[in-house]
Amino acid sequence: MSPAKIPRPAAELAAEAIAVRDSTIPAAYRLPKNTKLAKNVTGVLSTSGILSAAELAIVELDATRLAEALAARKYTAVEVTTAYVKAAAIAQQVTNCLVELFAPEALERAAWLDAELERTGVPVGPFHGVPVSIKDHLDVKGHDSPSGFLDMIGNVATEDAYMVEILRNAGAVFYCKTTNPQSLMHLETECYLGVTASPWNTDLTAGGSSGGEGALIGMKGSPLGIGTDIGGSVRSPAAACGIYSFKPSVRRLPYGGANIPVGPAGWEGILGTHGPMGRSVDDLEKYMRLVASTEPWKRDPTLDVKPWREVQPKRLRVGVLYDDGVVRPVAPVRRALDTAVSKLRQSGAFDVVEYAPYRSADNWEIISALYWPDNGKAVYDHIAGSGERVLPLTEWIIGQAGDRERSREELWDLVARRDAFRAAFAAHWQATGMDILLTPVGPTPAPAHGTARYWNYTSFWNLVNYPAVVFPTGAHVDPAKDAEAAAYTPRNDAEADVYDSFDAAASVDAPLCLQTVGYIGYEEETLWATKQIVEVIQK
Amino acid sequence: MSPAKIPRPAAELAAEAIAVRDSTIPAAYRLPKNTKLAKNVTGVLSTSGILSAAELAIVELDATRLAEALAARKYTAVEVTTAYVKAAAIAQQVTNCLVELFAPEALERAAWLDAELERTGVPVGPFHGVPVSIKDHLDVKGHDSPSGFLDMIGNVATEDAYMVEILRNAGAVFYCKTTNPQSLMHLETECYLGVTASPWNTDLTAGGSSGGEGALIGMKGSPLGIGTDIGGSVRSPAAACGIYSFKPSVRRLPYGGANIPVGPAGWEGILGTHGPMGRSVDDLEKYMRLVASTEPWKRDPTLDVKPWREVQPKRLRVGVLYDDGVVRPVAPVRRALDTAVSKLRQSGAFDVVEYAPYRSADNWEIISALYWPDNGKAVYDHIAGSGERVLPLTEWIIGQAGDRERSREELWDLVARRDAFRAAFAAHWQATGMDILLTPVGPTPAPAHGTARYWNYTSFWNLVNYPAVVFPTGAHVDPAKDAEAAAYTPRNDAEADVYDSFDAAASVDAPLCLQTVGYIGYEEETLWATKQIVEVIQK
Repeated sequence: MSPAKIPRPAAELAAEAIAVRDSTIPAAYRLPKNTKLAKNVTGVLSTSGILSAAELAIVELDATRLAEALAARKYTAVEVTTAYVKAAAIAQQVTNCLVELFAPEALERAAWLDAELERTGVPVGPFHGVPVSIKDHLDVKGHDSPSGFLDMIGNVATEDAYMVEILRNAGAVFYCKTTNPQSLMHLETECYLGVTASPWNTDLTAGGSSGGEGALIGMKGSPLGIGTDIGGSVRSPAAACGIYSFKPSVRRLPYGGANIPVGPAGWEGILGTHGPMGRSVDDLEKYMRLVASTEPWKRDPTLDVKPWREVQPKRLRVGVLYDDGVVRPVAPVRRALDTAVSKLRQSGAFDVVEYAPYRSADNWEIISALYWPDNGKAVYDHIAGSGERVLPLTEWIIGQAGDRERSREELWDLVARRDAFRAAFAAHWQATGMDILLTPVGPTPAPAHGTARYWNYTSFWNLVNYPAVVFPTGAHVDPAKDAEAAAYTPRNDAEADVYDSFDAAASVDAPLCLQTVGYIGYEEETLWATKQIVEVIQK
Repeated sequence: MSPAKIPRPAAELAAEAIAVRDSTIPAAYRLPKNTKLAKNVTGVLSTSGILSAAELAIVELDATRLAEALAARKYTAVEVTTAYVKAAAIAQQVTNCLVELFAPEALERAAWLDAELERTGVPVGPFHGVPVSIKDHLDVKGHDSPSGFLDMIGNVATEDAYMVEILRNAGAVFYCKTTNPQSLMHLETECYLGVTASPWNTDLTAGGSSGGEGALIGMKGSPLGIGTDIGGSVRSPAAACGIYSFKPSVRRLPYGGANIPVGPAGWEGILGTHGPMGRSVDDLEKYMRLVASTEPWKRDPTLDVKPWREVQPKRLRVGVLYDDGVVRPVAPVRRALDTAVSKLRQSGAFDVVEYAPYRSADNWEIISALYWPDNGKAVYDHIAGSGERVLPLTEWIIGQAGDRERSREELWDLVARRDAFRAAFAAHWQATGMDILLTPVGPTPAPAHGTARYWNYTSFWNLVNYPAVVFPTGAHVDPAKDAEAAAYTPRNDAEADVYDSFDAAASVDAPLCLQTVGYIGYEEETLWATKQIVEVIQK
């Protein structure tokens, strides 16, 4: 009989985890203790003096251009990895976006890739030498996957998650894992490691649940990252941090090796997907093409057998969602959307039509219940496992499913309602004749920490399972332009909550991003259409 | 207040349903009352004198050749429909395969199609003028869909099922609905309308649950029919009746408008699919191409976005399953398989390898439980609704799930076991390097009525969701060839049950069919490979 273990206090365990994480930041890349930071920390990379001019040029490239430069031997993998290790180290210190930085392993891998290219004359794969960051709950062989729970520390992966393996075989370099929130179910990122902030304004959230990816890529600390999305989790961080992300329909990307300690295995009521987060639409497409080219359906029978299709160019009919009927977007979001629509109209290259929102409240009622078939038992069990505190947004999102436990019959009924909603919505969508929908990513730009409680602009597309892209317009919140012109009387409590929480002045510099959505299963067409739209909007 | 209805006895209701059905058979196509029938009734079509020589020639064509002849105006739609109404009327009288024959509506439609072709010069669609039979539980506008339950009589469809609509738009002529068993979950076909028999030997079942289709098409009373399959229901009847059928992976064909009064809506543990039943592999492919060409995913968001792919011809590696490890096939099935393998080997055009069976018993344990999340409550409610008797095979199949009600947690666990099985099996399959598997359709040819209790040769491919084709080898049971050479000691109760029930002499003339199976989602490759194999085996 071994003596009973005396559990250590959660605060002590968290402090230790933070210290261990901090110790992975090389001393040479630490900012001076007395560095005074503005709210907008995006400039620290160049002002820090840690990256050389050549390294600063490297981290400006998107993953697509970076891969081309590596294949053309303009840079070595070691040069590129060094630049990104430095940038990620800085990003961590200003946004708190990392769970671990593993520079030595990454540099060893980069040196091997350089030697291989030297030896064979050809790149190892289409991502040869490209650093790729990975959200914490996705396994990277040899690294811990605490996934936002203190009691999961020590969960060292013995194998790569399937998508990590695909990237590794394609020549990618792994060098860090990035933060996700407690429960994985916040549109923000707070866990025992603290809060992850938007690099554009550290009073604001980096979004979530892939907020570590958002902040890191937004800081140019990564050219490409992998997040996951079941309600907005690659899109909210992209919007909060001013980058690109893609949530495909489920069954297109393999999900093996993801730790999902949030609900019961075998529950299919609502499924998530992983998705790329990057620096251009090209990056998102490059990743999707890579995965399809490996025929992942031969190993993962949950996936569609669906090679990547080439898109036939066409004149696009673009729908615009101005207001989902429950929470009207705040002034800067409306400005971004209006400006985008004007540019699309002025280009003469698109047919632009207004799109009528569809049963937003019903959608939320269904999906918020589908998230928690066990009323959060799995989450609360993990929290109890360490004694860490229940974060307010954890309690809030689980509470959206109601207090009462649903019987199996009630859960079947919920799934049947989901299917009826999906079928009815497909008819609504097809009746519009749209090729692509342009919509806000949320009612506000990056919310203030702890206030992201309106999910419908993203989660709607999870319930119906439509592919969706987030991209920056290039504009940012400007208090001079973004005050509400007139007092607005909220139509409901959700809207009051959003309008009460939002302050344009406090949100200065928050990036203004938009979302495009395509029909279910039309990943190819959605990315192609988005590229046409982004080129006009960013002009 | 209306007076309480006095329920009518089930036997009376059934007798009335039979009388109503019989009244739909035109008097001119009724066989003389004193007709003496052999067990093998396949010759009655030509000996009856009801079909002209020209009509007998029409019903010999497969759907593909028939559509070509109609498009080329070799036959009119009225001529073709008349021939098939006659053949179906006879098929009903010798096999009991119909729920309803609606000749006047069909002839009116045929006349309209003829006029359209005359007027426009082009066929209405790729199935212009082709009669298509429909399994009872699939809705045909204006017709009843009792679906094998006495209490569902009067369930007249106000819309076509989606696949019926697709066929109608393609120019098909509907003229009958065909029997399915009580509960839809027998590999035989018995309901309140009685037993449906194999036309090759009426002491044997037509298979099920699409047994009406099997018997009708086997009698040349239909060129093409639509059945459904969640455990073998298009394949068992094809095997019992000597025709072709195809079960694709789910999410390839739309399922809207199917009455599934068997389990709870919203339960996704195991899903069925409809599938074509026809007279050649070409017929099966023609149907699949038609459906894909309509882009059904635009209306039914449960479907894969997956246009029909053209297959690159290749040398095929054919695996052969001789024995699933639980129930060894009986002598005639072994003879059919051995002969087929010899022909494939002799052709020199295939690489033939032995395939090792995979966890057959586990598969059945999982799928038989997945069938009945409610322990048959929905079925028993329908039965109680009319007071009809519970058929032994209904009780048997529901009993396979065990008596105890499963909690929602146990059901989640079952689904997780299914997913683990699927993932492990994909690895097993891929490791073989096979393009296609050749396997029995069941341990016996068409079983004697009431004895079909071993599903694994078909249901295995439902649990893992692989596409599967059934085709006739051209051979039939011959008691002189098919006695067991040596006494066989059964390895288990299931095998004892099969060997006890089977008698080669009593099974004389039963068709010997085989099954091909392809990888999940490889519908195109599976049909193409089957065509290559069938051409050699049928030589």
